[in-house]
Amino acid sequence: MKNFEFKNPTKVIFGKGQISKIAAEIPKEAKVLLLYGGGSIKKNGIYEQVIAALDGVDFEEFGGIPANPEYEVLMEALAVIKAKKIDYLLAVGGGSVIDGVKFLSAAAYYKGDEPWDLLAKRIPTKKGMPFATVLTLPATGSEMNSGAVITRRETKEKLTMGGPGLFPIFSILDPSVVSSVPQRQIANGLADAFTHVLEQYMTFPVGALLQDRFSESIMQTLIEVAPAIIKNPADYEAAASFMWSCTMALNGLIQKGVPTDWAIHMMGHELTALYGIDHARTLAILTASHYTYNLETKKEKLAQYAERVWGVTEGTTEEKAKAGIHKTTEFFHSIGIKTKLSDYTEESEGTAAKVADRLASRGMTKLGEHGTLAPADVEKIVAMSY
Amino acid sequence: MKNFEFKNPTKVIFGKGQISKIAAEIPKEAKVLLLYGGGSIKKNGIYEQVIAALDGVDFEEFGGIPANPEYEVLMEALAVIKAKKIDYLLAVGGGSVIDGVKFLSAAAYYKGDEPWDLLAKRIPTKKGMPFATVLTLPATGSEMNSGAVITRRETKEKLTMGGPGLFPIFSILDPSVVSSVPQRQIANGLADAFTHVLEQYMTFPVGALLQDRFSESIMQTLIEVAPAIIKNPADYEAAASFMWSCTMALNGLIQKGVPTDWAIHMMGHELTALYGIDHARTLAILTASHYTYNLETKKEKLAQYAERVWGVTEGTTEEKAKAGIHKTTEFFHSIGIKTKLSDYTEESEGTAAKVADRLASRGMTKLGEHGTLAPADVEKIVAMSY
Repeated sequence: MKNFEFKNPTKVIFGKGQISKIAAEIPKEAKVLLLYGGGSIKKNGIYEQVIAALDGVDFEEFGGIPANPEYEVLMEALAVIKAKKIDYLLAVGGGSVIDGVKFLSAAAYYKGDEPWDLLAKRIPTKKGMPFATVLTLPATGSEMNSGAVITRRETKEKLTMGGPGLFPIFSILDPSVVSSVPQRQIANGLADAFTHVLEQYMTFPVGALLQDRFSESIMQTLIEVAPAIIKNPADYEAAASFMWSCTMALNGLIQKGVPTDWAIHMMGHELTALYGIDHARTLAILTASHYTYNLETKKEKLAQYAERVWGVTEGTTEEKAKAGIHKTTEFFHSIGIKTKLSDYTEESEGTAAKVADRLASRGMTKLGEHGTLAPADVEKIVAMSY
Repeated sequence: MKNFEFKNPTKVIFGKGQISKIAAEIPKEAKVLLLYGGGSIKKNGIYEQVIAALDGVDFEEFGGIPANPEYEVLMEALAVIKAKKIDYLLAVGGGSVIDGVKFLSAAAYYKGDEPWDLLAKRIPTKKGMPFATVLTLPATGSEMNSGAVITRRETKEKLTMGGPGLFPIFSILDPSVVSSVPQRQIANGLADAFTHVLEQYMTFPVGALLQDRFSESIMQTLIEVAPAIIKNPADYEAAASFMWSCTMALNGLIQKGVPTDWAIHMMGHELTALYGIDHARTLAILTASHYTYNLETKKEKLAQYAERVWGVTEGTTEEKAKAGIHKTTEFFHSIGIKTKLSDYTEESEGTAAKVADRLASRGMTKLGEHGTLAPADVEKIVAMSY
């Protein structure tokens, strides 16, 4: 096991009816900015619940944060924060809104001239403006971690940021909200969380026995609840296990003491930036190719995954490893997610080189848990996904 | 799944050589009291490591906190805290030292006349004096939770306390320390952590799929590392998985959203108070009896445990449940822990009634996850353990 440090101070408030607790968790003197996305919360009743829960709180509103939160829109919100002397942020939404609010938390306290440097120069945030979240879409785990991904429309860049100052103070997770999530987004959430686990698990073994089993537990739970929640998003028990699994998939716990990969995400972000493909679907497109290309270095863990998660008992280590990859693709298909780039775009011929070039242009020429995947490897992996 | 709140702000610093990081984590202006137990840390080199790491820190020392930390000794430490104007506590030890320091953290800020009321009246601590820990013995999980158990010698009482203000600021977990832990205490640590998981898992099912799997993961890992760590406590990789499993067994995570039992602990504390039997061994004495007595209400989960943790595939639900109990007893035996009260004391004839009476005298007449175990039931369970 590798040495590690772990601290996650976010308070999770989980369950039916918990949205009503917001005001009790926010300091009385706070001047709050309530932020949300494209307005779906105004159709599904969550907006009304939040407004009712903010009774007595001094707050302003900022709606319209898009999926893959855009820097340009967030800079408008930053202007509101400054103009209205806001000192507490409340994100109501999925990963995009929460990530956008993390950027704002950092930018509000940032002393430099250009907040984009928080991303371009990867400046970690030690202290951000306090913020909380009400999760409306299980998927990214952003509600209990300190990372964010922000997109710049003009340059088609999708970059990451973070720091120990960017954990939500509290996050309210009410599984009832899943009942109004469209099936496409539920499938995306399942695939996103599943791939988060894979990125932290499907590496070379380091004897981190408990971390491996926790990762397998999350994947087994996602597999178990997927049919129920796809069939009926109002199934509260399935929604609760789905939601908690998504949070645990990326709250830092399972990555401690182990190597992590994240190459699938790095490549996937480029596919979203280039073609607007849903984040989760870019991951599903690249997973089988990445593991097949890196079979030699990942086969022990792939075989363990095949055995423990999918019950594969026959074959050599390599055969089990390949069966594990096949089962993963089948899982994506079972939740209605296609796994070839050509299922999503016709522009795919030059894509592999484009993805490799774009990553290389930002110095990302050593991907994977061994730091050995060069642009030529990236190009081959993406080409295998056509 | 039940509604829940979860917040655990402790910073864990895990791995080889991490003790050297102490001073960097303690505020520069702090006046520290270093607390430890019977002096084993002076024989195994940990004391020297801690003193070296405290270079530049203003600190006093208080040694001699006994196993099952005694109120009488702790009150002496409290006098030192007041006399020396201490404002930060550093526990170096196992669960007993850490629990003792939690009592001191609470007592140092307590406004009432009688600090024993923190236990006798179960007064929760919202804010305690800041404290940190260096763990020397994996077992109780106290290094990452906010609870403590304190013993009063004169009345043979062993009571619990806690509160959101009693999480360590940071805890250093260096698995290297396990190499000098006596085999008896390693076995106790394994049994203690294993039973902690059982108390939070072996209840009626509520559809908390991920929590169940996490609990099973911890037990599977403890079972997997037990032979290696018993054979060779200097096996760093086994020690690391053992240590992290003990912490995760009682840091709050697996109890969220599920019913918990804790009757085994409540009865076990009385056996320690009466006869001085090691805490972990009292749990091993009572486990099979408790689950056999409550087979009807626990059989679904017992069968799931038998299947997933022990690979039992044959038989009815009840047969699997019984096999699970049997496997648990065998596990205790495999690590050298005897499971009958008569293995530990000759005074066992009247014990069952004594335990029931002592619990009843403190109003503990409704034990178990359903709150249905009356003193008559406690008496029968303890009698089954002779």
